[in-house]
Amino acid sequence: MTAAQLRIGVIGYGYWGPNLVRNFAAGPRTRVVAIAESVPARRQAAAVAVPHIRCVADAAAVIADPEVDAVVIATPLFTHHGLARAALEAGKHVLVEKPLAPSVAEAEELAGLAARAGRVLMIDHTFVYTGAVRKIASLIAGGELGRVLYLDSVRINLGLFQPDYNVIWDLAPHDLTIIDFVLGKTVGATARWISAIGVSHYGRHENLAYLTVGFDGDLLAHIHVNWVAPVKTRRMIIAGSKKMLVWDDTSPVEPVKIYESSVDVKAIDKESAYALNVQYRSGDITSPKLDGREALSVMAQAFAAECLDGKASDSGAAVGVRIVRLLAAAQRSLEQQGARVAL
Amino acid sequence: MTAAQLRIGVIGYGYWGPNLVRNFAAGPRTRVVAIAESVPARRQAAAVAVPHIRCVADAAAVIADPEVDAVVIATPLFTHHGLARAALEAGKHVLVEKPLAPSVAEAEELAGLAARAGRVLMIDHTFVYTGAVRKIASLIAGGELGRVLYLDSVRINLGLFQPDYNVIWDLAPHDLTIIDFVLGKTVGATARWISAIGVSHYGRHENLAYLTVGFDGDLLAHIHVNWVAPVKTRRMIIAGSKKMLVWDDTSPVEPVKIYESSVDVKAIDKESAYALNVQYRSGDITSPKLDGREALSVMAQAFAAECLDGKASDSGAAVGVRIVRLLAAAQRSLEQQGARVAL
Amino acid sequence: MTAAQLRIGVIGYGYWGPNLVRNFAAGPRTRVVAIAESVPARRQAAAVAVPHIRCVADAAAVIADPEVDAVVIATPLFTHHGLARAALEAGKHVLVEKPLAPSVAEAEELAGLAARAGRVLMIDHTFVYTGAVRKIASLIAGGELGRVLYLDSVRINLGLFQPDYNVIWDLAPHDLTIIDFVLGKTVGATARWISAIGVSHYGRHENLAYLTVGFDGDLLAHIHVNWVAPVKTRRMIIAGSKKMLVWDDTSPVEPVKIYESSVDVKAIDKESAYALNVQYRSGDITSPKLDGREALSVMAQAFAAECLDGKASDSGAAVGVRIVRLLAAAQRSLEQQGARVAL
Amino acid sequence: MTAAQLRIGVIGYGYWGPNLVRNFAAGPRTRVVAIAESVPARRQAAAVAVPHIRCVADAAAVIADPEVDAVVIATPLFTHHGLARAALEAGKHVLVEKPLAPSVAEAEELAGLAARAGRVLMIDHTFVYTGAVRKIASLIAGGELGRVLYLDSVRINLGLFQPDYNVIWDLAPHDLTIIDFVLGKTVGATARWISAIGVSHYGRHENLAYLTVGFDGDLLAHIHVNWVAPVKTRRMIIAGSKKMLVWDDTSPVEPVKIYESSVDVKAIDKESAYALNVQYRSGDITSPKLDGREALSVMAQAFAAECLDGKASDSGAAVGVRIVRLLAAAQRSLEQQGARVAL
Repeated sequence: MTAAQLRIGVIGYGYWGPNLVRNFAAGPRTRVVAIAESVPARRQAAAVAVPHIRCVADAAAVIADPEVDAVVIATPLFTHHGLARAALEAGKHVLVEKPLAPSVAEAEELAGLAARAGRVLMIDHTFVYTGAVRKIASLIAGGELGRVLYLDSVRINLGLFQPDYNVIWDLAPHDLTIIDFVLGKTVGATARWISAIGVSHYGRHENLAYLTVGFDGDLLAHIHVNWVAPVKTRRMIIAGSKKMLVWDDTSPVEPVKIYESSVDVKAIDKESAYALNVQYRSGDITSPKLDGREALSVMAQAFAAECLDGKASDSGAAVGVRIVRLLAAAQRSLEQQGARVAL
Repeated sequence: MTAAQLRIGVIGYGYWGPNLVRNFAAGPRTRVVAIAESVPARRQAAAVAVPHIRCVADAAAVIADPEVDAVVIATPLFTHHGLARAALEAGKHVLVEKPLAPSVAEAEELAGLAARAGRVLMIDHTFVYTGAVRKIASLIAGGELGRVLYLDSVRINLGLFQPDYNVIWDLAPHDLTIIDFVLGKTVGATARWISAIGVSHYGRHENLAYLTVGFDGDLLAHIHVNWVAPVKTRRMIIAGSKKMLVWDDTSPVEPVKIYESSVDVKAIDKESAYALNVQYRSGDITSPKLDGREALSVMAQAFAAECLDGKASDSGAAVGVRIVRLLAAAQRSLEQQGARVAL
Repeated sequence: MTAAQLRIGVIGYGYWGPNLVRNFAAGPRTRVVAIAESVPARRQAAAVAVPHIRCVADAAAVIADPEVDAVVIATPLFTHHGLARAALEAGKHVLVEKPLAPSVAEAEELAGLAARAGRVLMIDHTFVYTGAVRKIASLIAGGELGRVLYLDSVRINLGLFQPDYNVIWDLAPHDLTIIDFVLGKTVGATARWISAIGVSHYGRHENLAYLTVGFDGDLLAHIHVNWVAPVKTRRMIIAGSKKMLVWDDTSPVEPVKIYESSVDVKAIDKESAYALNVQYRSGDITSPKLDGREALSVMAQAFAAECLDGKASDSGAAVGVRIVRLLAAAQRSLEQQGARVAL
Repeated sequence: MTAAQLRIGVIGYGYWGPNLVRNFAAGPRTRVVAIAESVPARRQAAAVAVPHIRCVADAAAVIADPEVDAVVIATPLFTHHGLARAALEAGKHVLVEKPLAPSVAEAEELAGLAARAGRVLMIDHTFVYTGAVRKIASLIAGGELGRVLYLDSVRINLGLFQPDYNVIWDLAPHDLTIIDFVLGKTVGATARWISAIGVSHYGRHENLAYLTVGFDGDLLAHIHVNWVAPVKTRRMIIAGSKKMLVWDDTSPVEPVKIYESSVDVKAIDKESAYALNVQYRSGDITSPKLDGREALSVMAQAFAAECLDGKASDSGAAVGVRIVRLLAAAQRSLEQQGARVAL
């Protein structure tokens, strides 16, 4: 029945909801049949933008709607668990905004519930569906970079403060998911510990944090997330033993650049403290053409494909749980002055 | 006797020595009268570039030379202490490449020796003499940024591996000195702890490290130093409560940019978890004109001014000791998996 | 009756039409009541995106519609005159995509018709409504740049070839309108001649052209328009006797930069051929914060204000005719190997 | 006798002379034995920088010196002819700063004199020896760009005004030589006409000019030279039917970028004015690694190779004469309001 259309109910028409509505409405395999939004002004915005889609105040009505096959949840983090559980219990497929839940227990409960119900539980980890991340993952999987040495990510800007959690829970899900996808899925790198240092300049939640993730061997990932920075920066460096790459997500023309640069260290002469035979190689720089489709649209169709065809997506419940586990461990480290928390 | 010229003997004509020779030779208050260099090929290079300056193999000859008023030491780190001590004991003024010494004990011993001998001991912390750092310090001192919230520095490139120490001892002296100058000297911020995480991909010394320095209150500094990066990056963000600035030392046209951007958080309504009144302000961006003189030349003349006129420089023995203390603490943290080391 | 809403009929739902529909639909003083589009696939696109707006095949139906107060024409250049004339004759206000018409005679006829009918004829010269152009005009008007010396504009990219006219008619209307606004309206600079050189690499219409516009005195404007360029460039330099500015319309963060740079030449010593006392001044660089509203929305509301309140816009019929006159003169120069054509 | 060293006398130790001295002194096949400089302060500068090289006031003494094999002339343009003629008549090889002479007659006379005397006459067209230009020429020669469509060069900055000639004679020699080398030498493109428009804002010589060079077929080159620009720009676009490239000479990391972008226009359907089957292709962007040697040093050794081994350089007398011919034609066009001047 692959020709069928998935009928979507969207809960939450705030900041991200309109983007979800637009992409699910564009189809071809999905259709938006209802929206629930508790804030009157936002319901009014929906009435102007999508007057042909029914918009109600009550999420429960959408969840109970027999015309809705799948529920898309774009509400604040602390409501994810309740809404997703209700939707799964009502027999709906569920897509949840990232992160899946504010605790490992809630995330695992939702994953278990979905598994038992035979329903799809997917998380909108949009970055996994970008042309840049797909290209980077394929470069690493294909061995083009050689052995991966480290990953350094900077995700900072003058950003909206979230009222009920810190910058780690807001921004780091992006980096952690990308790391999980480009290092975990491709070459099986397994995170062993995480540490986090942060500071709160305005109130109780940290607006600036540095995360370090240690993997087996000498692989390290470092993440800088920050709501109080003068310039929007979205830059990831991935260094390999053969090549290195820089992904600047703010660059419209050359987001990914691959550098034929590497270091080669010969065996150190033990006799002499000064003998270190390091050879540097630098060569061409290439910026590959990327898949230019809107990632959210690719994600929406991946959700449809899993719901309608059973084809597993790249941001399913297991991914969602893993990311929450990393976030919770980072939170614990933060509360322990940056001490390493084993994973 | 301010009209006199300081007669300089330079020890070490490797990577940095030629720059020191060129700047001290350019005067007006300094003159290079001798060079010592143990490697024959480098002596040959000196013979081609500066055939009119005497160049010998033996550092002791320069140190003992009665025509030499001041000795400039541009040799490997582990030779600093021995050479500097000999020169001070011979009654010479001394300028040492950064960092002053590989241990706090050695650094302190040199400082004490210089004080007792009544001779100048200065460290070539060149960055303190750049137009950018002087401008940043004056902005902070004048309150233009407001209260400083954090400092984030990235100093990475495909860099020369040092054979006998790690990337922290090689690159972080720059950042730590800048921090010491723009935060310590201006607004009296005092570092309370340091933590360091690093990794070694080639041999025994770390080629990549992240340092965090905690100050009183909620001020944090973070430093990324790295010898294995595809693109040379020299970027420092300093965020204040009123304005923020970015210093990109690789930009020839606009190295320092000041952003009229800030965040203003009103008192949080305790009744509601969701009430967070954050106001964002963003305005003009200004790139101030900087003093364009070569920093090394400014440093050289500051050394002359201290030796000849007794005018204290901004990178004297006390600064050198403080920086070594920070480096040693970072090293200790590195060896303890990033645990905070109190200062 | 300023509270009334202007009821808009849009003709053409191709490349630009959807943007016009979106902005006129967003109001508050305008409403889109009908769309005409002759291509079935594009009507289908309208049905998906704006299912609540009536969309017909026949432009005449929209023009005749008594519920339509104003007609917005976003169709190919050679249809502008016929559609605009019909709409004006039907008593509608008219907004036409740039340029107004493919000949001076047609442009003037439309302007005359609108004047006699007492209806608004406005051209969608969107750039005049951008924050950047408003800021630049106010800087020049306020004398901040001093006397304007020259303007140099580059507007190039791998662009859509227009089938029925060359790159001058496609892209140069933007530059010419901006020049007309920032130099003509503010300081009364009057263009005296124009010359154009171009080349056609693919078929009969030029895909690359250089235009020079001479003004009274020593003021010169130069424009490079190009459909076959590897990188999208939208850069305008305006040099004044006191300051200079660069507008890079592709930069999201700092589109306009003002340089405190200038040249000051003292009276030349007549005795000596070599005496030329030029003094250079360079200082701070400032990027002013700009009005960030979408220009098309500002333009749409300016159209509403003129139709409803009689408040003249900045891209009325007279501007439209002037721009067509410049384009036609450039075309004549192009056909005469770049000979200057007087204006 | 290829092992011999060429003994160089340099006339002129002003702006460029020190660079020539440094590169010829660095050898290995050249040695600087004398400098002539008429300005006392500049002779003093030479005494400080190169105290071991004899420096005299009188150029004639260097030209007559039997220890001098070759004379390097780095003096103002209007002195080139007299000095070069005297040196050639004294039996010396001659290297002249660009451009060779201020008139075609003088340039041709020097070329003829050198030919008759059997001496080398070379011009310091340094750009021909840069890694970027060599790479670009080899890409074009190898057909990698396809058929070359156009070349667009921008060479502007807040530059030193030359007292005795305009910006065309100062800056355009660079562009014209590069064009001559990458288009003329490689694929035999022959310039047929030139036109120039300029303006003088300060005194009698133009400080801003636009040059257009027409070649056989539809190939066009355009050059913007300017002494009064806020930002230093050195950007050349070369578009080919297969690929395009941008050379940004101010970029330290990626000066040359090759874009796999092109336009493919199918035969136009004659039936329909609107049918234009243009296909766009855009793909990877590559920045090739370039030869990083200092161009002036490569040029110096090319001069040595021609003098000592008879190996013809890429900037010999014939090139010098061609460039002066283009400059003189541009000057004529400038004086005729941009009329095309046939070559």
